[in-house]
Amino acid sequence: MQTQLRSLRQRACGGARCTARSSAPAAAARRSSRAQVRIHVAAPTTEAVSSSEPGTFDFKSYMESTAASVNAALDAACPSKYPETLNEAMRYSLLAGGKRVRPALCLAACEMVGGDVAAAMPTACAMEMVHTMSLIHDDLPAMDNDDFRRGRPTNHKVYGENMAILAGDAMLTFAFEHVARATKGVPADRVLRVIAELGRASGADGLVGGQVVDIQSEGKEVGLDVLRYIHEHKTAALLEAAVVCGAIVGGASDEDVEKLRRYALNIGLAFQVVDDILDITQSTEVLGKTAAKDLAVNKTTYPKLLGLEKSREVAEQLISEAIAQLDGFEPAKAAPLVALAKFIGYRQN
Amino acid sequence: MQTQLRSLRQRACGGARCTARSSAPAAAARRSSRAQVRIHVAAPTTEAVSSSEPGTFDFKSYMESTAASVNAALDAACPSKYPETLNEAMRYSLLAGGKRVRPALCLAACEMVGGDVAAAMPTACAMEMVHTMSLIHDDLPAMDNDDFRRGRPTNHKVYGENMAILAGDAMLTFAFEHVARATKGVPADRVLRVIAELGRASGADGLVGGQVVDIQSEGKEVGLDVLRYIHEHKTAALLEAAVVCGAIVGGASDEDVEKLRRYALNIGLAFQVVDDILDITQSTEVLGKTAAKDLAVNKTTYPKLLGLEKSREVAEQLISEAIAQLDGFEPAKAAPLVALAKFIGYRQN
Repeated sequence: MQTQLRSLRQRACGGARCTARSSAPAAAARRSSRAQVRIHVAAPTTEAVSSSEPGTFDFKSYMESTAASVNAALDAACPSKYPETLNEAMRYSLLAGGKRVRPALCLAACEMVGGDVAAAMPTACAMEMVHTMSLIHDDLPAMDNDDFRRGRPTNHKVYGENMAILAGDAMLTFAFEHVARATKGVPADRVLRVIAELGRASGADGLVGGQVVDIQSEGKEVGLDVLRYIHEHKTAALLEAAVVCGAIVGGASDEDVEKLRRYALNIGLAFQVVDDILDITQSTEVLGKTAAKDLAVNKTTYPKLLGLEKSREVAEQLISEAIAQLDGFEPAKAAPLVALAKFIGYRQN
Repeated sequence: MQTQLRSLRQRACGGARCTARSSAPAAAARRSSRAQVRIHVAAPTTEAVSSSEPGTFDFKSYMESTAASVNAALDAACPSKYPETLNEAMRYSLLAGGKRVRPALCLAACEMVGGDVAAAMPTACAMEMVHTMSLIHDDLPAMDNDDFRRGRPTNHKVYGENMAILAGDAMLTFAFEHVARATKGVPADRVLRVIAELGRASGADGLVGGQVVDIQSEGKEVGLDVLRYIHEHKTAALLEAAVVCGAIVGGASDEDVEKLRRYALNIGLAFQVVDDILDITQSTEVLGKTAAKDLAVNKTTYPKLLGLEKSREVAEQLISEAIAQLDGFEPAKAAPLVALAKFIGYRQN
């Protein structure tokens, strides 16, 4: 398993910018490569963060190699076991692609504070597991009743409601177990802090609380305060956990953890403002999930409350505030988190 | 909060046999009282374990005071927070009574190996949270479709399916967070072992796996091997985690942890064999949940495969094997686990 994982990683990480491998020579090569990186200060467009111009941080390659490493780690973490249908249902949603933004944030934060990204991989995977389980449960007929996710039929459309509920439960459980069991070379008290942060972000004070208020607000006129609560809990909380937990695993100081928390809360809120914008500006095909869904259920969104242009301004402002939190870090090391913030603010799907 | 918890505990623990309080004088009084206890060797009937005859272990008082302490701790762990409906739904099921067998097993195991029961209380509460969330989700229309649980309408009958799904998710998450955050005075590596054990017991290799095979076996003829798989995973796994995690928190040696694991697997299997028996021998009123449910859905059970008498023999054999694992421990200290095993084997609801 370990060999297979390593070889998958090696294949995925052909370039010098790969961030998620653990061998000492590879890490040395990475540090050397990073030292030569110069940050490309550009207008915050999608092109800016995916530029492959020499001397700039190559965000596209970074995300591709990170996603490949994360996918290999997720695949290895969930070996096929009895009962087969349950494991098939779990793997169907967990390995369905996705941008792996949360794991990337987690690994980038760990590396920025000088930590070992291999040690943060179980935590990065746990973020994706919790995210995936929330999608499976949110899509259920009793909730948002969605048929389409990441370009494929939703979990319950393929495996039935009962299996989708249970696959979500098993994945949520496994996220915590995986952090506790698979994190190596990190002091146990740090791992406990990670589990506590992940727990808060995933439950009544995070994802679940946000989803509850979201459901309760459907078809009602709600104000910016409620909308902000929903976004901060349903979306920002897990992005916050991803960044903060990566930093904790990496041994960041309390002060740096709090800076990164503010970074993450800003990009988290921006993420959802952009999601609201994309819902009305993009097609189902581009999004990989049902478009114009918010309009169909008369949901309160940032564009509905503030208009499209003002919503775009809000997203830009949030991204600027996020990036400002990274001022005290070495620019070359902060490059992935800067690029991730821009990506979240200016993505098209 | 802490003061309130302590005073609730003190009120609940009037007698000298209370096990779940943390002050040093109380612990000393308890040790002194325990030293005088003589185990009452009796035919394993319900009366034997609930005897209040002088000189015997008073199981009834033990369970009452333990349940009171656990209820106070659960109440304090889940303070009412926004969103109100979610927290109300969580508290509705979590504080609905129940025998608190899993927390009692956890605390008894911790105390038997010489640990501090107050340190094990968050772990004991986590066992009840996971158990409760599994009941909420298993009762859903898409699963067992039950209307009645612990003598009251099921969670989704009161709060709706969406809220029941989310209340379960939040409770599962909180179980792990609570262990990580609230366990005090225990080395962090032990707490991580507890989280890993709880994770395995609650997910695809435990509760969820058992429920999946249970659902897939409905209306089919299955053999003893499949039935045993279901019972071991759906029921025994969490009882095992309760006992094993209590022992780990208490600092048990690996050898003692494995003895207690065998004890727990035996009582866990017995628990479900007895459940199968009670389903056909007791009324809905006595059970507090729908009786004769297994017959109604033509479910394979021990009585169906082996007959009622042979099933009772199997349960007795399992209880004997469980108690045999406690041979090496001081009888006075092992009394609660002996009594719990007998209670599980000979309960009436």
